[in-house]
Amino acid sequence: MQDKSLINQIGKVWRWIFPVVSLVGFFQGATLWAATRPNIIVILADDLGYGDLSCYGHPTIRTPNLDRMVAEGMRFTDFYSAGEVCTPSRAALLTGRYPVRSGMAHDQFRVLRPRSKGHLPAQEITLAEKLKAGGYATGLIGKWHLGVWSINPAAHPMRHGFDSFFGLPHSNDMNPAMGSPKGALRLPDQEAAWWNAPLYRNEEIIERPADQTQLTRLYTEQAQRFIQSNKNKPFFLYIAHTFPHVPLFASKKFRGTSRRGVYGDVVEELDWSVGQVLATLRRERLAENTLVFFTSDNGPWLIMDQQGGSAGLLRDGKGSTWEGGMREPGIAWWPSKIKAGVINTNVASMLDIFPTALHLTGESLPKDRLIDGLDITATLLKGEDIPKRTIFFYRGTRIFAARKAQWKLHVLTQASYNQPKPEPRNPPLLFDLNTDPGEHFNISTNHPGVVADILNEIKTHQSTVIATQSQLEEVSLLEESTPSK
Amino acid sequence: MQDKSLINQIGKVWRWIFPVVSLVGFFQGATLWAATRPNIIVILADDLGYGDLSCYGHPTIRTPNLDRMVAEGMRFTDFYSAGEVCTPSRAALLTGRYPVRSGMAHDQFRVLRPRSKGHLPAQEITLAEKLKAGGYATGLIGKWHLGVWSINPAAHPMRHGFDSFFGLPHSNDMNPAMGSPKGALRLPDQEAAWWNAPLYRNEEIIERPADQTQLTRLYTEQAQRFIQSNKNKPFFLYIAHTFPHVPLFASKKFRGTSRRGVYGDVVEELDWSVGQVLATLRRERLAENTLVFFTSDNGPWLIMDQQGGSAGLLRDGKGSTWEGGMREPGIAWWPSKIKAGVINTNVASMLDIFPTALHLTGESLPKDRLIDGLDITATLLKGEDIPKRTIFFYRGTRIFAARKAQWKLHVLTQASYNQPKPEPRNPPLLFDLNTDPGEHFNISTNHPGVVADILNEIKTHQSTVIATQSQLEEVSLLEESTPSK
Repeated sequence: MQDKSLINQIGKVWRWIFPVVSLVGFFQGATLWAATRPNIIVILADDLGYGDLSCYGHPTIRTPNLDRMVAEGMRFTDFYSAGEVCTPSRAALLTGRYPVRSGMAHDQFRVLRPRSKGHLPAQEITLAEKLKAGGYATGLIGKWHLGVWSINPAAHPMRHGFDSFFGLPHSNDMNPAMGSPKGALRLPDQEAAWWNAPLYRNEEIIERPADQTQLTRLYTEQAQRFIQSNKNKPFFLYIAHTFPHVPLFASKKFRGTSRRGVYGDVVEELDWSVGQVLATLRRERLAENTLVFFTSDNGPWLIMDQQGGSAGLLRDGKGSTWEGGMREPGIAWWPSKIKAGVINTNVASMLDIFPTALHLTGESLPKDRLIDGLDITATLLKGEDIPKRTIFFYRGTRIFAARKAQWKLHVLTQASYNQPKPEPRNPPLLFDLNTDPGEHFNISTNHPGVVADILNEIKTHQSTVIATQSQLEEVSLLEESTPSK
Repeated sequence: MQDKSLINQIGKVWRWIFPVVSLVGFFQGATLWAATRPNIIVILADDLGYGDLSCYGHPTIRTPNLDRMVAEGMRFTDFYSAGEVCTPSRAALLTGRYPVRSGMAHDQFRVLRPRSKGHLPAQEITLAEKLKAGGYATGLIGKWHLGVWSINPAAHPMRHGFDSFFGLPHSNDMNPAMGSPKGALRLPDQEAAWWNAPLYRNEEIIERPADQTQLTRLYTEQAQRFIQSNKNKPFFLYIAHTFPHVPLFASKKFRGTSRRGVYGDVVEELDWSVGQVLATLRRERLAENTLVFFTSDNGPWLIMDQQGGSAGLLRDGKGSTWEGGMREPGIAWWPSKIKAGVINTNVASMLDIFPTALHLTGESLPKDRLIDGLDITATLLKGEDIPKRTIFFYRGTRIFAARKAQWKLHVLTQASYNQPKPEPRNPPLLFDLNTDPGEHFNISTNHPGVVADILNEIKTHQSTVIATQSQLEEVSLLEESTPSK
């Protein structure tokens, strides 16, 4: 009797509860539907070396947040930048194309400067443009370096697909203040007054000189705010950190705290920042719907001595086409989608981010142009091998080297700095990067077939490259405008 | 009623069960009592470089078992061997003393050879002797290299505290067969017939030439057997792997399977072996009562080209007192006692294993001699910092360098090979290993106080070293005896 009356009572209550539950279910369903289009976050360090993270073997830099990202995600051992310095690399990342195709490379003027007239051409399609057109919120936080809008308004990131921008137009050493000491870049004890970088919010300078000690913290806060304000729609966030490019500045909380000196302080603050971003995603319950990719634009700037990073066991650094110049940490994180703790040894490239992100978000690839990257969705989500491919190592507009499977062939070599001219290699140098990742033992004479094959790959690739006016050449005769604020 | 009769029945049964349970409890208690004295396992690789494990950043060698050991235990970033080559290093490990004290170092004859008369002197106290006297079962599996008992019976490991021995008397390249090709060591495709190493069980040769492709597998099986047969008493097991010392041999299961060539095959088989040992401990429920320490005797043998390993970002390799010669992977594992996933950045040394193991097993330190190692129990179990200390880098009988805190001072330098004589450094070279682990930037002029302090530490240390007849000098005129089997 008692039991039956209880059931009756439940029945009565249920008649009230059911519609409410259904309504909640409806909204949850809507959220789930939106959830099928994942968010994409790309976090790019600046001049970080292959050997500079704890999870890539550095003995004195502690990166617990990136180590955790690795433990929860996929760590690439053979992940490459597609440019040997800032500007070409960033053009490649956003377009999925070798920078030579977009005019974002030059043999003498290797990056855009504060007085450069050129910029990423309007006809180039950035990942931000594609995703914005597809209904994504898009944001750039950090360094742009694909054009100077105080010289040419069309250079602004908001003209290239980003809804919003918060950061610096180019590298943090590009606006030295009057009277900054000679060789200031290499000094561990930087003074704010030596630099005059402008910090922008959208098109407005909000601080000049930017307080560089606060940049990583500010970028992080901005990133958290961006995620929170866009949590109900799909978003693409590109966090292009200013550091560890010199001059090195860390906030008070990190300054003097690492064993690796100021370089370590800066990298450890960057690691903290990554941890904050991932924690925000977890807190907002977006982690399982967000792919986060971490890498760097190019290798360590070795001529900066102790203010430069380390490529670990790899040869040379930033500016060169030796492995140390272009092989980078590469970490993909997407809880519940990417299997935790996987080390991926495939040859992958920052060029792959463009087509992979488009696939994951349901957008189509541009049909009217060559995209050099590969869609590696199946690798990320199913652990499938990336198909055999050849990647090309450009220095400026020329191919210096190419890699296919474990083989790397050098047709030109040049030390990153202090070697005035490239040295043609004929016969080319061949290294087996599996057994010899440090590029010590040239074995070209043992493998003539491999040499011929890769030379042929280079030729085939070159036949697809159309000569383009470089954007990096032309310089405005006007001084960059320096507004009072 | 029913309930009461059930209780009565239980009471009756209990009268029978109780004594049996008590008896089981008594034996379990005895086991638990024994369990308060932990087992100690030291796993030593041969010529493994700082950069050769996946968990220390190698891109193409996969070491999932050592990576897991790291994730479950403590990984040292600044762990040092106490000898630059095999013999002195192994003497240091087993005695806790710099090899110069025991006569196990020499400036010209750097290791014991098959015809050496000398051996670890009887008056030296090994960890095995101490633990055996304390009631431990003791076993050596692998390479000894502290004396040749076919020349002098007192050299045998069973005369130095080990209950049993299974392995090779010295390095696997020390008995070349007649007619082995010139430069055979560097060849990736080894043939068994080129080498004539004897495999011993205790004092008996059980195979000659030893089938080196089977050594890692055999050592592993022997280790598992040792653990199983000693699971009811405390034990000390020293597994001194033959590899990755050249010539490199892997078993069929591993041969040709790694990306790093035969060197990688060999290291990956060694990694498998570590995994098997840890799995056996888990299976036998001994894991929580066993400290396992993994390291190597010295850095990579770089002149072996692709058959030699990598020190990662560290300078030089085996034979030198640059970091690459003596800084090693160091991993401590003891589930439930050592906190999981800790990266320890203290300066630690293989010299510390002797006093730490004695403390953990309740044995006393020898009182009649200097022990150079420190008891790091509090570091392993409580995460406390190792006290500031100075460690000395000997090459032969001379101190070449010393490290105190982050500072490393070189008073003599010599490239590992191909530099005939040491170069006196006056003023000495000073490196900050925290900011400059690769020893690139000499900053001695900036820190005269540090230089003076470390020079003083060297002087103080040297005043404790008593000149001793080297055991490495004297060579028997007789050929090493080569029994038919």
